[in-house]
Amino acid sequence: MGSVALVGVGLMGGSLGLALRERAGVEVVRGVDPDPVAIDTALTMGAITEAAVTVEEAVDGASAAFIAAPVAALPEAARAVLAAAGDDCLVSDLGSVKAEVLGSLGAVERARFIGGHPVAGGERTGVAFARAELFEGATWFLTPPAEARPDLFERLHALVVALGARPVAIDVDVHDRLMALVSHLPHLIAAALLNQAATTSPGGREALRSAGPSFGDLTRVAGANPPLWTDILLANRGAVLEAIEGHAGQMAEMADALRAGDRDAVRVAVERAAAARERLRADEPGPARARWRLLVAIPNRPGVISEIATALGHAHINIEDLQLAPGPPDGDGELSLVVEGEGAARRAADLVAGRGYRALARPAD
Amino acid sequence: MGSVALVGVGLMGGSLGLALRERAGVEVVRGVDPDPVAIDTALTMGAITEAAVTVEEAVDGASAAFIAAPVAALPEAARAVLAAAGDDCLVSDLGSVKAEVLGSLGAVERARFIGGHPVAGGERTGVAFARAELFEGATWFLTPPAEARPDLFERLHALVVALGARPVAIDVDVHDRLMALVSHLPHLIAAALLNQAATTSPGGREALRSAGPSFGDLTRVAGANPPLWTDILLANRGAVLEAIEGHAGQMAEMADALRAGDRDAVRVAVERAAAARERLRADEPGPARARWRLLVAIPNRPGVISEIATALGHAHINIEDLQLAPGPPDGDGELSLVVEGEGAARRAADLVAGRGYRALARPAD
Repeated sequence: MGSVALVGVGLMGGSLGLALRERAGVEVVRGVDPDPVAIDTALTMGAITEAAVTVEEAVDGASAAFIAAPVAALPEAARAVLAAAGDDCLVSDLGSVKAEVLGSLGAVERARFIGGHPVAGGERTGVAFARAELFEGATWFLTPPAEARPDLFERLHALVVALGARPVAIDVDVHDRLMALVSHLPHLIAAALLNQAATTSPGGREALRSAGPSFGDLTRVAGANPPLWTDILLANRGAVLEAIEGHAGQMAEMADALRAGDRDAVRVAVERAAAARERLRADEPGPARARWRLLVAIPNRPGVISEIATALGHAHINIEDLQLAPGPPDGDGELSLVVEGEGAARRAADLVAGRGYRALARPAD
Repeated sequence: MGSVALVGVGLMGGSLGLALRERAGVEVVRGVDPDPVAIDTALTMGAITEAAVTVEEAVDGASAAFIAAPVAALPEAARAVLAAAGDDCLVSDLGSVKAEVLGSLGAVERARFIGGHPVAGGERTGVAFARAELFEGATWFLTPPAEARPDLFERLHALVVALGARPVAIDVDVHDRLMALVSHLPHLIAAALLNQAATTSPGGREALRSAGPSFGDLTRVAGANPPLWTDILLANRGAVLEAIEGHAGQMAEMADALRAGDRDAVRVAVERAAAARERLRADEPGPARARWRLLVAIPNRPGVISEIATALGHAHINIEDLQLAPGPPDGDGELSLVVEGEGAARRAADLVAGRGYRALARPAD
């Protein structure tokens, strides 16, 4: 493929540059960043191959442009990149909140913009800590809008797979609600716990200084990058407020059980949590299962591929490979998906058939 | 010293047995436990030197007895051990909630009972995972009641120091409120987060299965031992309910700021948390400072040593060594304390003087 533009060269952008070069065979990575030191470091590390001064220069002739900027800067950056990039350039981002940037774009812009969110990072930020392995095994959410061009979605999917991550297409609002629950709310809670412990001193002894190691583990996330987190929480405030309400409900239930001295209710709540924790651990990758191929006849129009990929993403079916073979004008094209295991393939075929598309599942290779 | 009795031989009791033998020069450790397999394992590992069948047998002739039983079993066990143990036997426990067991004892029993709580543990329970190093560097809370016999407090303090832990005397209610804030509430919150994520599935995609590694770190504590945690939460429910209320207040403030789109308020809350997190890390032991000795003239009666040790504990002044030299009847005795650093010594002297005792601080050794 052609060159790739990186708009923003920090930990995430830098790691993406390294991974694109080392794993996806990309030869030219052109980076632009307001911070000249970041650009120098990225060049020295090989995270980018060329430094650009403007966005226009960075995206000139590029096949793909990734915006790795803070969440609050995404809407403006996305519009600028889409305006500067050529018609065949895929535009994506790495932001952890997705609805705001998508909502800021018009329908024509959405055809080339497919949001992304690699669930990866580190305690330390900055390009100096970038590494090609950052995305290895990570879930990489994709939020293709209905307008997304199928060929650009195919390109992004293939790139994410090449980087060693697992692309998972989901609806943009679903993404933001999920992140509110598993990332933004926990972050807010860690901050609340720290603030409560720091401001409560029974008998004059500060609670914060009486904490054991597990309190440290639990609140580690709250130490990172306040401006970044302020932006994330505000960008996703609707979903975060909904999650806070859900949390308040859970806590009120626990409080009621404790107040009533209802041992069974307390035990059940704690046991359910322990079981959920077990499932969380069990979700780590197991032994590889047989690869199955799903062939789907689809009309040649945008929306369909986003719809199918998203339906599978919502159903926890990972698409390991995705290829489009366009058919004749007005005729059906073919979408070829690879999934792991016969069970997933059969479920996927049922899901797709339920949406009115003809589907066929068979062992791959 | 004489033999030590361990009532309960699991991870904590077993580790205590190993540490007493390896580090405190205790030659006879007699263990009793309802689980014969635990007793066999403890004998094989050397965590106990003798198996007792009854509490009476375990404490016979012992200088100290430690109850390492689940929190719910502590009141009954404490009464049984106190009834069986000789007049010169210190009785302590390792429970993470302290007011309930103390409240269940009469004034005479309290003279020999000094609660303890080593802030240490592990994900895996059972004597098989016991190790002498478990308490190394850990805070070991002591909750001496006013009735506590000074010589028994001195004995317990010395034992805890010998085990490599840092004894910190605090009021029993202060202890339980602190633990509610830094341990029980966080545990409950981790459980609530897991339950919320496990029962919320926007777009059909289960939030729990969309969690990244940081969600796993954050909720790790909630996987452990539901019956044990049910007991802890119920035993400390007053303080836990108070902590839940404080948490709700913190979360409501955050929600208000988000709802109003008040960027400054959100940023300040997140920055305060980050600063608290920094202080938490900074609290890890620094370079050793000069040892100072604090000499305090005290009347020969119970209550005084508990009062002084607790006042220092509340003020975050660690007592590294504590010795009592009793004076003539009706005359003053002398309490000799070692603390780290001149600043801590001066603060300690002021504190003690403020309570009406004559105190002198000078470099130790």
